[in-house]
Amino acid sequence: MEIKIMKNILDRNQNKANEVRSLLASKEVVMVNIISSPGAGKTTLLERTLEEIGSKFRIGVIEGDITTDRDARRLQRFNIPIVVINTEGGCHLDSHSISKVLDSFSLDDLDAIFVENVGNLICPSQFDLGETFKLAVVSTAEGDDKPGKYPMLFREARAVLLNKIDLIPYTNFNLQNFVTDLRNINEAVPLLEISCTKGDGLTEWFRWIEDQL
Amino acid sequence: MEIKIMKNILDRNQNKANEVRSLLASKEVVMVNIISSPGAGKTTLLERTLEEIGSKFRIGVIEGDITTDRDARRLQRFNIPIVVINTEGGCHLDSHSISKVLDSFSLDDLDAIFVENVGNLICPSQFDLGETFKLAVVSTAEGDDKPGKYPMLFREARAVLLNKIDLIPYTNFNLQNFVTDLRNINEAVPLLEISCTKGDGLTEWFRWIEDQL
Repeated sequence: MEIKIMKNILDRNQNKANEVRSLLASKEVVMVNIISSPGAGKTTLLERTLEEIGSKFRIGVIEGDITTDRDARRLQRFNIPIVVINTEGGCHLDSHSISKVLDSFSLDDLDAIFVENVGNLICPSQFDLGETFKLAVVSTAEGDDKPGKYPMLFREARAVLLNKIDLIPYTNFNLQNFVTDLRNINEAVPLLEISCTKGDGLTEWFRWIEDQL
Repeated sequence: MEIKIMKNILDRNQNKANEVRSLLASKEVVMVNIISSPGAGKTTLLERTLEEIGSKFRIGVIEGDITTDRDARRLQRFNIPIVVINTEGGCHLDSHSISKVLDSFSLDDLDAIFVENVGNLICPSQFDLGETFKLAVVSTAEGDDKPGKYPMLFREARAVLLNKIDLIPYTNFNLQNFVTDLRNINEAVPLLEISCTKGDGLTEWFRWIEDQL
């Protein structure tokens, strides 16, 4: 019975996601759904990205958070349109909440919207927001076994960002194990090894995301 | 409408959790529900704990995982009863699945069951399993802002384990900020600072958990 209810919720979510996707396509706005565990570095990634490409593209941000506006406040200095969605305990964003807040943006004046989903590797992968593509962010401190344990995200993502590579020497993270695990789940997805605090690999990331936009 | 459905699910979960709690109390078995983000170190904590107190207490383990039995295999060397619950995409354990697998244990021969919940800070905090208490594990690599962002777990936990304190010198984690944030959410909860790979703080943890059992 619970499965049936869940299916209804997912069906309704999918219908609204399709509407969102059509709207964004008609406005030529790329929407990037960024998904990771808590603390993998989504907000810092956005900071680095806005610093680098914020003058070349007109970017808006949707911040998904359970209860605070902390992440949004970290991005205020960029003077871009930001909307916070507080899920009040909900573990993922859905297409209905995205659809509602899209009214707050002037879509004709935007090239892209970055959505920082709620910190969670699981349900955000299951709820289509109408995004152009999903981006997986995973930190080396989480261990090298995450693709196999949370396969859905790594199957669906258009790119995987392995963040905090500067911490590898201080952890038991084994890059070869991680790559093998990832390739078992998704043979072709681009893997970008980065450190958002130290700067490693960001040039390749900026090039990749500019190509997508 | 979705809220109503969710309430029904939570009500049914609570009823079954109450049954589980009564059963465990009658058998004098302590059940510890361990909750964290992916990769915060729950399994390594269990390894260290079983090495230290595994001969003093009769312990069983329930491993919650989306799809693999990797964590369970890491614990096989202890020759203790272990049951894996694969949620097949579900982002949390619930009391019904716990109730079912309790049949696999000989409860008269156990002092404690450690439940390693699915790696997720959010929904596992909302679903009572019938546990004796919840344990929050958070890694320094996740950043010092997690208590305020994911308040429910930090409000409900009987203790908070701050793991990977050996990584603090290599991150922008600020212990004072973390403590302030935690105390805003939960003034009194014991905070244990540990490193499961390096050993820091584990003596205090072993003493604390032995007291609980």
